[in-house]
Amino acid sequence: MKKFINDVALVEDQMIQGMVKAYPGYLRKLDCGNVVVRAHKKEGRVALISGGGSGHEPAHGGFVGKGMLDAAVAGAVFTSPTPDQILEGIRAIATDAGVLMVVKNYTGDVMNFEMAAEMAEMEGIQVKHVVTNDDVAVKDSLYTIGRRGVAGTVFVHKIAGAKAEAGASLDEVQAVAQKVIDNVRTMGVALTPCTVPAAGKPGFELAEDEMEVGIGIHGEPGTHKEKVRPADEIVDHLLEQILADIDYTGSEVAVMINGSGATPLMELFILNNRVADVLADKGIRVYRTFVGEYMTSIEMQGFSLSLLRLDEEMKELLDAPADTPAWK
Amino acid sequence: MKKFINDVALVEDQMIQGMVKAYPGYLRKLDCGNVVVRAHKKEGRVALISGGGSGHEPAHGGFVGKGMLDAAVAGAVFTSPTPDQILEGIRAIATDAGVLMVVKNYTGDVMNFEMAAEMAEMEGIQVKHVVTNDDVAVKDSLYTIGRRGVAGTVFVHKIAGAKAEAGASLDEVQAVAQKVIDNVRTMGVALTPCTVPAAGKPGFELAEDEMEVGIGIHGEPGTHKEKVRPADEIVDHLLEQILADIDYTGSEVAVMINGSGATPLMELFILNNRVADVLADKGIRVYRTFVGEYMTSIEMQGFSLSLLRLDEEMKELLDAPADTPAWK
Repeated sequence: MKKFINDVALVEDQMIQGMVKAYPGYLRKLDCGNVVVRAHKKEGRVALISGGGSGHEPAHGGFVGKGMLDAAVAGAVFTSPTPDQILEGIRAIATDAGVLMVVKNYTGDVMNFEMAAEMAEMEGIQVKHVVTNDDVAVKDSLYTIGRRGVAGTVFVHKIAGAKAEAGASLDEVQAVAQKVIDNVRTMGVALTPCTVPAAGKPGFELAEDEMEVGIGIHGEPGTHKEKVRPADEIVDHLLEQILADIDYTGSEVAVMINGSGATPLMELFILNNRVADVLADKGIRVYRTFVGEYMTSIEMQGFSLSLLRLDEEMKELLDAPADTPAWK
Repeated sequence: MKKFINDVALVEDQMIQGMVKAYPGYLRKLDCGNVVVRAHKKEGRVALISGGGSGHEPAHGGFVGKGMLDAAVAGAVFTSPTPDQILEGIRAIATDAGVLMVVKNYTGDVMNFEMAAEMAEMEGIQVKHVVTNDDVAVKDSLYTIGRRGVAGTVFVHKIAGAKAEAGASLDEVQAVAQKVIDNVRTMGVALTPCTVPAAGKPGFELAEDEMEVGIGIHGEPGTHKEKVRPADEIVDHLLEQILADIDYTGSEVAVMINGSGATPLMELFILNNRVADVLADKGIRVYRTFVGEYMTSIEMQGFSLSLLRLDEEMKELLDAPADTPAWK
């Protein structure tokens, strides 16, 4: 295992410290565990909290800032944060307008965020939540009942965050978050596995000529392994699976080509070249395209493709100003 | 070689096409070769052009837009663009205020940009240039006489681009670009090599427990190979080398932790944690920190550390608005 780390036991802590030291104008770390909140607390409007295991950077701490999240809670690598940690985050950001939790659909995350919400409510904090489940690859996977929440979650952060910033009520922010969830679908592929530092070896194996199709963001199995195919054929397969779930024909969409951590931008652009062509052929209009790393899997070589069907409200909120370390 | 590509002969073309399709509001591709220019031509002010081999994405096309570059010329992977390509870029962006070329110090790049400038001047276009050479690792390397131009070049794009946007003269824009060059130093390390698609195999070899110290952005050798060390010790060594070249003690600096393409943000933040601590100890004040991918080496696992000594003018220009795909 070759990594720029000091000690596997210190990875999460030193990462969060390094992130906060890079962006002191944006982020503040709470004393209790790896929770980052906005350097300047938002007042009078709905506050958003998200999080999950570490290893998905820039998610989730990189999206804390004006127009997106108010807090991000980071568990150990690929491990749900504890209810106590989440509760500390909720307490730190809570306003009279309430708190919305954006939770990716993994059994541990959902359980721990819900427990934290119950505790917060006992303290008089109003908390609602949404659960993202954009991954069309598999249902009822290793860690999840139902579909997994993956890179499409970042669109929820952006759009619900903009709605909250505009002063909407908790019900309204929850409703637009759910609208994004209802309209976003994702699927991914990996060429290589990734190594959780504490484990010291890759989470799964792939032969030199193989890829894992439908990979999850923790390296969970997808639909199948197969020989690596040309980029265009991979895109065609992913789009086929996504469009079988939601038929985006005739719609206007946002596209996200999300690198898994070790995929060069060069390849993400080659993938987007095909995505753009196929969508144009199918009469699916692209409103905006996002190419880069949003929801990674440490140093996995892979990518996911997300499509989000937009209406006028979502377009306006997607375009609204945001000022966070990883989304401006 | 596992990559998301279709054909090694089409890598550069499909990448540029995919980039322009992702950012049609920012970028336009010229018909002749892989040259991207701003979608909306800047008028009446100095225009900036940069470029080099492909494989360094987001450099250089990702920095084309308001407040930074006007054109980026992309050669084949790790290969200088031709004088003809560069000339087309210069022609497309030239204004009466003149054109500044920002060239990284590699023998081929310098020669080809200078030839293009001579041809442009014969057509009546006023062209000046600067040569970046921020890499303290080695002098007179494989491809270069003198020090190599690496990630610090992006600070030149940002600061000189802001100066040009503000309406400064060609001499003034060149002067501030040179001021950045005089004050920025960089050094990098790699844990793994990278594979040029057309070559099909890694450009050099490293044992499972080795790193290359002082690596160049094309995988050129650095100062030496050694056993991988903890992140903090690597940072300490790089800072020692950089501070031996310019003593930044007492200065205010911008810091860039630049990922080489396959290094997870997790590790870049762990590295920044040490950088921030050591600089604080040495009385070097950090004005802003940039952590991410700016000047990559395809899928190399590595990073570079840059320090730029700032004065009031450079601080203002660094903070000036920019709107490009990769720097906002």
